[in-house]
Amino acid sequence: MHINENYLKLQENYLFASVSQKIKDYKLRNPTAEIISLGIGDVTLPLVPAVIEAMQNAVSEMGCADTFRGYGEYQGYDFLCEAICGYYAKKGVSLCKDEIFVSDGAKSDLGNILDVFSPDNTVLIPNPVYPVYVDTNIMDGREIIYANGNAGNAFLPMPDYSVEADLIYLCSPNNPTGAVYNKEQLKLWVDYALGNNAVILFDSAYEAYIQDEGIPTSIYQVKGAKECAIEFCSLSKTAGFTGTRCGYAAIPHELIRGGASLNKLWLRRQTTKYNGVSYIIQRGAEAVFTDVGLGQIKHDINYYMENARLLTETLAELGMWFTGGKNAPYIWLKCPDNMSSWDFFEYLLEEANVAGTPGIGFGVNGEGFFRLTAFGNRDNVIAAMQRVKRVMT
Amino acid sequence: MHINENYLKLQENYLFASVSQKIKDYKLRNPTAEIISLGIGDVTLPLVPAVIEAMQNAVSEMGCADTFRGYGEYQGYDFLCEAICGYYAKKGVSLCKDEIFVSDGAKSDLGNILDVFSPDNTVLIPNPVYPVYVDTNIMDGREIIYANGNAGNAFLPMPDYSVEADLIYLCSPNNPTGAVYNKEQLKLWVDYALGNNAVILFDSAYEAYIQDEGIPTSIYQVKGAKECAIEFCSLSKTAGFTGTRCGYAAIPHELIRGGASLNKLWLRRQTTKYNGVSYIIQRGAEAVFTDVGLGQIKHDINYYMENARLLTETLAELGMWFTGGKNAPYIWLKCPDNMSSWDFFEYLLEEANVAGTPGIGFGVNGEGFFRLTAFGNRDNVIAAMQRVKRVMT
Repeated sequence: MHINENYLKLQENYLFASVSQKIKDYKLRNPTAEIISLGIGDVTLPLVPAVIEAMQNAVSEMGCADTFRGYGEYQGYDFLCEAICGYYAKKGVSLCKDEIFVSDGAKSDLGNILDVFSPDNTVLIPNPVYPVYVDTNIMDGREIIYANGNAGNAFLPMPDYSVEADLIYLCSPNNPTGAVYNKEQLKLWVDYALGNNAVILFDSAYEAYIQDEGIPTSIYQVKGAKECAIEFCSLSKTAGFTGTRCGYAAIPHELIRGGASLNKLWLRRQTTKYNGVSYIIQRGAEAVFTDVGLGQIKHDINYYMENARLLTETLAELGMWFTGGKNAPYIWLKCPDNMSSWDFFEYLLEEANVAGTPGIGFGVNGEGFFRLTAFGNRDNVIAAMQRVKRVMT
Repeated sequence: MHINENYLKLQENYLFASVSQKIKDYKLRNPTAEIISLGIGDVTLPLVPAVIEAMQNAVSEMGCADTFRGYGEYQGYDFLCEAICGYYAKKGVSLCKDEIFVSDGAKSDLGNILDVFSPDNTVLIPNPVYPVYVDTNIMDGREIIYANGNAGNAFLPMPDYSVEADLIYLCSPNNPTGAVYNKEQLKLWVDYALGNNAVILFDSAYEAYIQDEGIPTSIYQVKGAKECAIEFCSLSKTAGFTGTRCGYAAIPHELIRGGASLNKLWLRRQTTKYNGVSYIIQRGAEAVFTDVGLGQIKHDINYYMENARLLTETLAELGMWFTGGKNAPYIWLKCPDNMSSWDFFEYLLEEANVAGTPGIGFGVNGEGFFRLTAFGNRDNVIAAMQRVKRVMT
């Protein structure tokens, strides 16, 4: 009996636990302090009415013999796969319904997709980045190389042809930096992947936050991407589904590696190790993609993006360097006076009673940077920015 | 770029597709025939009122800012983990809430648990059996050995000390055979596992169908099991959740292998590759474990078990050999006159217009056997048995 020894190589990520602990300690010492958190990575607005209504109806159906549903379809119900295809069609992307796989979220898919790739592949991961890209590959024992994001490239690393990679993670709009690749930049990544026979794992979880026309909201808007990219998306931030759980992956039929269709390999993986998303949740997800649903979620996204505008406006006034906040719910700032991530965290907490997230938690290249999110309540955002202005000027 | 070549070693399982096709072909030739299926592996009764009410309330909560829930707790909400612990307590099994992991179902957990074990482990799998135990291990490239189930051991294979195994699958009540291990038999498996430093993956998805007092409904009712077994359970058949999706795994803190806590390894796996079950569904699952909910699901289970009684009564009258149907929703019969599984399938379909599932689809030891399920509608079960009696006497 051997356990998977790769698990022992994982580093514990104490980032969010440490953040909580430091806030708790501060409160203990300063019981009257009202701390505002701009570190929240979770949505705060409730589900929109169209989604609620659809799920109420679906729950009722599950209680009646005539409308009850047992096991669903393996890739997701047709009604949802077709709604997702319709959403893609509006972006000018043509996908057919058996290229869509409905799941409980992008995190599951991004982890589980690795099942269909050999552990001897080399993985290229931007740094800083969402930590699970790294951890899921350590679990499989893959070699990991990093693409350096830094202030010089506005945290948008580009391909380096001296490096060979088999699997490439891209997240745009990016968590944690809020940086967004334009079409020309994504085209360079697609060309690099095609040249290396590599596969891009494209995390588009924040695509709904893109405001600028012309910036791709799907990698398939870039020519050649269907031959080299799997796209992962989620309703978590698009429609407030962080606690409701629904996402999807797109694997075009054109994506062939080692003579095998990755779509068919993934179908085999999912039919063997997964039984799909609750009918009730799939009906809620379908409602997101109706005209009414899209209008309602746009309203919520606008609310968060107005928060982002208020945050970036203040940072600009203070002359601070930052990325994001324009086409993304994340803002990534350079800590003033060459402070470390944790020093700035403590400074903001103690001087302004505002909490954020130290950039070092997202990789070594995050040192000296700091993440704010736009998912809070408007009054809190305004109050927090007043405090930040007070202490920073 | 290499794909996971193990996927190419998987055999396509055309069982259910072939069953459907043969029924379709028969109908085409005999358009007026009314075929009754006793092959259904899915529940047919709707969700019980307690579950529906709980989910309606939870959906409403998700639509209000004050009660909205974002990301849930990693192992499942406390309210559900505590309800599951309470269910175990009634069986005389003491588990604490951080030994419970809520998931979207046993199929996911049974597949994903393999992540924490090395591919060089040897796996012991009963034959015949639920096909995903085999396929998920082929995907990882593990060596598989089989424990032979046959009429001689009533399809309850026992440990063979000449064989060394690291991972052992047990499913009791069994799918497809309906056979159920008693406490003494399970004790022998636990002793064997402890002696081999092996881990038993115990699939208890059908535990709610056990009627006889004294037959274990959890492997933890057997002394020593907490040191060697992970238990997987599901609400799919317990409460009709096949399309609603909720299950749970129990990993006791006592379960240590290679110096590591399997509970902690699984926690790490799940926090990295999973984001939990929808709040709405967890509230529905919680309602199953209330006194009202347990009463309502018992009513449905009794309905299915009365179907099973009618099925076995007919088989007994006809003098046919079978297992199951007493503490399980499955009945496993020996095809008469040494017919093959497929020959008997065609015989029943053509002569009685009754469909079932050929045993060969569950492994080589299933040849010559046939599975019936109790999940159908009462009138259909009665009509099917009248037809079977007519053609078999």
